[in-house]
Amino acid sequence: MKKILLFTSISLLMLACNQKKEKIIDSNKLSTEEKKDSTNIKTLFNSALMDGKSYEWLRDLTTNIGGRLSGSPEAAQAVIWGEKLMNEVGLDSVWLQPVMVPHWVRGEKEIATYTTNGTQKNVPICALGFSVATPKSGILAEVIEVKSLEEAEALGNKMEGKIVFFNRPFDNTLINTFRAYGGCVDQRVQGATVCGKFGAKGVIVRSMTNAVDDYPHTGTMSYGNLPKEKHIPTAAISSRAANILSDDLKKNPELKFYFKQSCETLPDAPSFNVVGEIKGTETPENIFVVGGHLDSWDLGDGAHDDGTGIVQSLEVAYLFKKNNIKPKNTIRVVFFMNEENGTRGAKKYAELAKLNKENHIGGLESDAGGHTPRGFSIDANDSNTDLLKSWKKLLAPYGLHDIEKGGSGADIGPLKGENVTLVGYRPDSQRYFDYHHTSTDTFDKVNKRELELGSASMASIVYLMDKYLYNDTPVKQ
Amino acid sequence: MKKILLFTSISLLMLACNQKKEKIIDSNKLSTEEKKDSTNIKTLFNSALMDGKSYEWLRDLTTNIGGRLSGSPEAAQAVIWGEKLMNEVGLDSVWLQPVMVPHWVRGEKEIATYTTNGTQKNVPICALGFSVATPKSGILAEVIEVKSLEEAEALGNKMEGKIVFFNRPFDNTLINTFRAYGGCVDQRVQGATVCGKFGAKGVIVRSMTNAVDDYPHTGTMSYGNLPKEKHIPTAAISSRAANILSDDLKKNPELKFYFKQSCETLPDAPSFNVVGEIKGTETPENIFVVGGHLDSWDLGDGAHDDGTGIVQSLEVAYLFKKNNIKPKNTIRVVFFMNEENGTRGAKKYAELAKLNKENHIGGLESDAGGHTPRGFSIDANDSNTDLLKSWKKLLAPYGLHDIEKGGSGADIGPLKGENVTLVGYRPDSQRYFDYHHTSTDTFDKVNKRELELGSASMASIVYLMDKYLYNDTPVKQ
Repeated sequence: MKKILLFTSISLLMLACNQKKEKIIDSNKLSTEEKKDSTNIKTLFNSALMDGKSYEWLRDLTTNIGGRLSGSPEAAQAVIWGEKLMNEVGLDSVWLQPVMVPHWVRGEKEIATYTTNGTQKNVPICALGFSVATPKSGILAEVIEVKSLEEAEALGNKMEGKIVFFNRPFDNTLINTFRAYGGCVDQRVQGATVCGKFGAKGVIVRSMTNAVDDYPHTGTMSYGNLPKEKHIPTAAISSRAANILSDDLKKNPELKFYFKQSCETLPDAPSFNVVGEIKGTETPENIFVVGGHLDSWDLGDGAHDDGTGIVQSLEVAYLFKKNNIKPKNTIRVVFFMNEENGTRGAKKYAELAKLNKENHIGGLESDAGGHTPRGFSIDANDSNTDLLKSWKKLLAPYGLHDIEKGGSGADIGPLKGENVTLVGYRPDSQRYFDYHHTSTDTFDKVNKRELELGSASMASIVYLMDKYLYNDTPVKQ
Repeated sequence: MKKILLFTSISLLMLACNQKKEKIIDSNKLSTEEKKDSTNIKTLFNSALMDGKSYEWLRDLTTNIGGRLSGSPEAAQAVIWGEKLMNEVGLDSVWLQPVMVPHWVRGEKEIATYTTNGTQKNVPICALGFSVATPKSGILAEVIEVKSLEEAEALGNKMEGKIVFFNRPFDNTLINTFRAYGGCVDQRVQGATVCGKFGAKGVIVRSMTNAVDDYPHTGTMSYGNLPKEKHIPTAAISSRAANILSDDLKKNPELKFYFKQSCETLPDAPSFNVVGEIKGTETPENIFVVGGHLDSWDLGDGAHDDGTGIVQSLEVAYLFKKNNIKPKNTIRVVFFMNEENGTRGAKKYAELAKLNKENHIGGLESDAGGHTPRGFSIDANDSNTDLLKSWKKLLAPYGLHDIEKGGSGADIGPLKGENVTLVGYRPDSQRYFDYHHTSTDTFDKVNKRELELGSASMASIVYLMDKYLYNDTPVKQ
């Protein structure tokens, strides 16, 4: 045996031998009730990892339907797909909530190019959502590079007839990449508002990513209150192309950039939120929402954004049913429509909840990708926040250490209220902006185990919230 | 502004607006010295994320040299590459440690096939390291499926002339995938010893992976004390092929499996550990080793196993130098040779350390892939273990929550001693066995930020160990 071991990859074997049985949690430190919870949580994880359905659901959605921008035929297909799937999982009731959504279309593939030092360079760009088209012949203009809205604003009329190029990169020293995104996305959203005002001819924006690569990242933009005649075409350019253009501008400040896009905003289109629920056994009038968004951008297949959130949300209900966990409150799974460019589905859902005097006591949203679990972000009153944080000891063994106060999500956000506990699922963020809103957001970027661990993480916190939140007092908003 | 926000991806913006500045750590809870440490650790992370070199080093190693099995021309190239790189980084001294290594070669691509129900199926297999070849014409035999060494042992002479098929899969409910590996790898390592004894004709082993896919995973095996004439050919088959074969055997227990491989073990070959160091400013006679292994299996490019460990180890030294952190003890970077099939480099290193009366006070090994950081595993005496665990508050903001007692690594393991603090870097393990020892262990599977966060995590714990371990007493083994 010894001799055999000498010839093997000892490090791995050592790990194995030292810890043959995985000691998930030190049960001596738990109360009787916590031990029961710990067992139930382990059951949910085992079930997700051995019998999870989310990965195959996601494969189906992303490869057979693909990208599903609001108003598109694919979004309509996704609604049918979602309703059918919820029925297959056997939810107690499933229905569609009609909602009118914006209907922006990209049109033909965008073209961008410039010539400097005798060399013509083709530039990977894509129109931003809600942007207007260029004239059919495209636009050609000199470029002014800026790093912020303030810098652009200060240019004033100097930008007239020019293309303004926003090129402030992500701050890669921020460990949470969503914060880096938050530090840059104003350029994408508001760039055209600032520059349209002063008569710029167009706007190009560095793609929102930590990486230096060749993929333009789309996303929504706005013209604010600008009158229509001041709406100027706006596009994202890949981060590598942004670096190269910036270098070229230093050498040749008068170079002319050409781009052409044919996108347009059509009249609003009819669509739906897809809703299904497991009725609560004790207080069915109290509702927990678990959801993600069904729409996606059009460039990729909407795998991490937010196919993973959709299938994980449904898997929460699937895991409850499979393991015969009967929630005392109603668990409602919602596939929200139109998170990406309008959040109309979220608003409609909240509006109907109010209209129907529904009693929402909490929500959980998964819209930060399908990577390995890290924790949850809590938007709730202090006592409920503390309660959720106290579950760290039960959840940390599954990698869920980061359970802190913070935002929840765009789709459940409108349900906010003093006694409503909203939670955002927070997987590891390091790779998210490699794929976000690009052509590379495809099924092959999702790891089966990471996805399933996410489903189980979500199911576990829903199990705990259902059991412990509002335990003593009936809740009425 | 409000109107603009309505049209944007509100969830992400909310996150951003709530937390514009990343609050890495609550500095009110730190002592003056800890604040200084916290600042230095942040500097190391910033530096790795903004100016890290590890990703480009890894690209070079994996794409220009590729897989580098001990004794191969590529392993020899990797030694030259490593020595050159250490010199470029500007270590105080760089040298090679000669070591003789096993020299096993795969030969021609393996072939496996069987026919059942009139259909011929080609099976993805690969020879296991140290396996003998089949006869030139291959072997053809009936198959007996077993799930364990015990089950095989119990078969006794019934396996004579048969191929024994080990098919116990990973336990996917284990959160740490290394534990699942540890629960299965005995089949790969010892299967041939058990079956050769009873006259089996060959052994095939289910690949060591959590996934169900088409890639055979190689790895080392052993014939234990069996005489040469009982050495039988041994191969890994892909997990999907294992499932299919198992199904087919249920329907047709007499099907005959054919495989052919031409691998062989040549005489030991000369090779080297690559060693470089930064001399300590106060107690240079005390040495901390930081390392990974330079060799890899031949099927892929050895990216996660262990190219990432190599480049991260060197990046520790690079980050120290770049940020003018002068260790009081000597920091020695070692690219160990032959971890995969022999750990001869590790043994030689420890042997020379003893011979030269070197004073090793600790070591850090990275050989668990280049994924997002999770923590460290500590093999040390109780007081040093407690000290390292007390650094959680400084390291947790970077995702390093799992700092626990456990094994360290195969290459630094031989340095173990009462006053030696050995640490294994532990990144997230979920994706590791998708790539481990297969053709898919290539550069594109490594994420730049995850790799760099690992380098910075390692540099941070080396910084703390250098500063605080053995602070009061001079160490002599």
